[in-house]
Amino acid sequence: MTGKLDQLRRDAVAIFQAGLAAVAPGAAIRRFCQLEEGVLRVNGKSYPLDAFNRVVVLGTGKGGASMAKAMEELLGEHISEGLITVKYRHLEQLSTIELIEAGHPLPDMNGHAGARRIFQLASQADEKTLVICLISGGGSALLPLPVAGVSLDDKQQTTKVLLACGATIHEMNTIRKHLSAIKGGGLARAVYPATLITLILSDVVGDDLDSIASGPAVPDPTTYADCLSILDRYAIRQQLPSTVLRHLEDGAAGTVPETPKRGDRIFSRTDNVIIARNCDALIAAKRKAAELGYHTLALSSMLEGDTRESAAMHMAIAREVARYELSVAKPACILSGGETTVTIKGTGKGGRSQEFALAAALKMGEMKNSVVLCAGTDGTDGPTDAAGAISDSSTLEQARSLGLDPAAYLENNDAYHFFHALGSLYITGPTNTNVMDLRLILVG
Amino acid sequence: MTGKLDQLRRDAVAIFQAGLAAVAPGAAIRRFCQLEEGVLRVNGKSYPLDAFNRVVVLGTGKGGASMAKAMEELLGEHISEGLITVKYRHLEQLSTIELIEAGHPLPDMNGHAGARRIFQLASQADEKTLVICLISGGGSALLPLPVAGVSLDDKQQTTKVLLACGATIHEMNTIRKHLSAIKGGGLARAVYPATLITLILSDVVGDDLDSIASGPAVPDPTTYADCLSILDRYAIRQQLPSTVLRHLEDGAAGTVPETPKRGDRIFSRTDNVIIARNCDALIAAKRKAAELGYHTLALSSMLEGDTRESAAMHMAIAREVARYELSVAKPACILSGGETTVTIKGTGKGGRSQEFALAAALKMGEMKNSVVLCAGTDGTDGPTDAAGAISDSSTLEQARSLGLDPAAYLENNDAYHFFHALGSLYITGPTNTNVMDLRLILVG
Repeated sequence: MTGKLDQLRRDAVAIFQAGLAAVAPGAAIRRFCQLEEGVLRVNGKSYPLDAFNRVVVLGTGKGGASMAKAMEELLGEHISEGLITVKYRHLEQLSTIELIEAGHPLPDMNGHAGARRIFQLASQADEKTLVICLISGGGSALLPLPVAGVSLDDKQQTTKVLLACGATIHEMNTIRKHLSAIKGGGLARAVYPATLITLILSDVVGDDLDSIASGPAVPDPTTYADCLSILDRYAIRQQLPSTVLRHLEDGAAGTVPETPKRGDRIFSRTDNVIIARNCDALIAAKRKAAELGYHTLALSSMLEGDTRESAAMHMAIAREVARYELSVAKPACILSGGETTVTIKGTGKGGRSQEFALAAALKMGEMKNSVVLCAGTDGTDGPTDAAGAISDSSTLEQARSLGLDPAAYLENNDAYHFFHALGSLYITGPTNTNVMDLRLILVG
Repeated sequence: MTGKLDQLRRDAVAIFQAGLAAVAPGAAIRRFCQLEEGVLRVNGKSYPLDAFNRVVVLGTGKGGASMAKAMEELLGEHISEGLITVKYRHLEQLSTIELIEAGHPLPDMNGHAGARRIFQLASQADEKTLVICLISGGGSALLPLPVAGVSLDDKQQTTKVLLACGATIHEMNTIRKHLSAIKGGGLARAVYPATLITLILSDVVGDDLDSIASGPAVPDPTTYADCLSILDRYAIRQQLPSTVLRHLEDGAAGTVPETPKRGDRIFSRTDNVIIARNCDALIAAKRKAAELGYHTLALSSMLEGDTRESAAMHMAIAREVARYELSVAKPACILSGGETTVTIKGTGKGGRSQEFALAAALKMGEMKNSVVLCAGTDGTDGPTDAAGAISDSSTLEQARSLGLDPAAYLENNDAYHFFHALGSLYITGPTNTNVMDLRLILVG
């Protein structure tokens, strides 16, 4: 590798790390929450702690442990009690708040037990209780609490039917919310009439509050009638567990209460604050790139869609920068965020970020002095121990010299082993945050 | 429609038209070629016309007629003779140069006869002849001249086999060039030792000279051995017409001469000049947008890939502009060029630009005051009479009020009828140029 490429790779890592630092839960909580003379200020609102008898911290998600730690550092002994479900081994040393390890992405009985205890704590909160709820990505799976009469198995069976029939994520969430005691505003209902502050780390494209962890503390815009329409759209009524079908039909008939809706008084004492989102990481990374002397183009924090198509489009932009400096002058840093998907056809190992880096390498054409880094901000890319990968304008040549066929690795969805062989996996370990992915392309 | 949207739509059309004007063949030829005191200057090189006994104009492609007209306007009576194959009804009134109408996209016997006559004229050119060759998109189909022993039918049969086995466009061109007397440098070989100036309107992403009209006047980097590798990669030797297989095998065995290669003396008197390309249109459109007061972001002239994926990515960028002015400030004009593909699953009518405009409308989310215009610079989008379509932030509402389901139209690849109903097809008629597509998004 030339010295120039080496420098670009170091810059790429520094830029990514700057993005990551901006969305670390501790930093994010400190940015939005301050304690001054017994008054908790959250995003401009004031909560005098002596107005409350108890401060209870609840929550769920991959960032739960770090968020809890930052909250303990902020509120210390003001916290009366706390309970948060987190992913296995995503732990921190805490004083008051209890962490419950639970299954993710598949919910398990640990999560169920944790959710039941959290719901109980929420229900016990009274007018003199301040409840602080910490939500981050993964919360849907880590906080499973089916409505009365529906078992966790029934709910999982329902998820399988919905996946098999091709329902969209929005449709799945609509039904999930109506089968949960805690999602779709259920937590806010349980907490009422206590005061509820929800601090949110967004792992959802567009940052819709009712999508992040299925919106436990926000109004649900969907209805039981919507649920039945979905069942009929895919003709799956008969495939659902009878308990599930009965609950949804009862709901539509009005014999079971709807999920809380906008304007409901239970939301009169709730405040939802997104404390970190993909765009924050993107903007911080962009700033760092500018500091390092790059002209920057941050495309969007909302990129979705097929990973290879996305890689091709990014490289079409980058190649035009290399050739004509069309969108931005050289040396350039092109950045984007969001979360793409991988269509798995092969039998290899990888994740969307590694697949992006490999697909991008194959689209570099005549580019020189160019580096691509993409990684998940949670430190995990697919079922691998890497956060992502780094490719550059020497990657194809390097692969040739090792006798590797990059196109064949891509075809087999085996980017992990490709980059492993090249020593170009990007490994961060768990970051305790999660605002989807960052991608950056340096054109030197 | 609000007055604001109306203004944005007018601006969008003005921006597209400015892009189009920059790649009109006449303007492009005048930009690169001047005649001064009997000396023809082409892109910095000088050709004193009195050094030649004859000036012969040959050519092919959708822009052929306009290019020929511009050349007659420039050289007038200096032109001794001329022959160009064009698409049916793509004609102009000319004095000396003869136009032959021929089949496109499927070659026909008219094209074959025209190609034979053009090859003959080229072969007759001697040291004292100046040959000016005018090449534009569509030339591959409009100039079919199989090598001796292979019929047009055999060649077409070969194309079908290659399409069916999933060969890439690059692989198809490799074999095509080795079955053609005129492609892959064949025309340059026929013209030698005459002087050859080739003026090219590029309709190829990346503007590779050997891809445009299969490179009749440039060295061919591919070989007969490559052809056999391709046949074996797809195991299709036995499916090819025996004449074709024999020719390729003879070529690989060295009993038939290779296509001309880089360094061959036949290229010592040739000059290839791209006079217009997608990026020229893109930059002119960008300049017009800036004149109209928009902040501009021209992404790339090299966009390819799936149309809907591309639309989603463009709108992710546009939505982020609407929300945070991330990549560019409002009012913004985001532009791109190149050529996407449509995966046809439905039975409707449309083209890639109309499909893009519809897919983009479905991805506008909460955007207000936004307009999307995409169209082919040749004035034709797929098998329709429209160049493309215009959608905007009122399109979905308008569709609802007419009882149309935009997602269903998209699913059925029926964007033409959708935009026809809305009165939002963009119709220019034939433009006599062809540098692929332009897309622009205005965020007011």
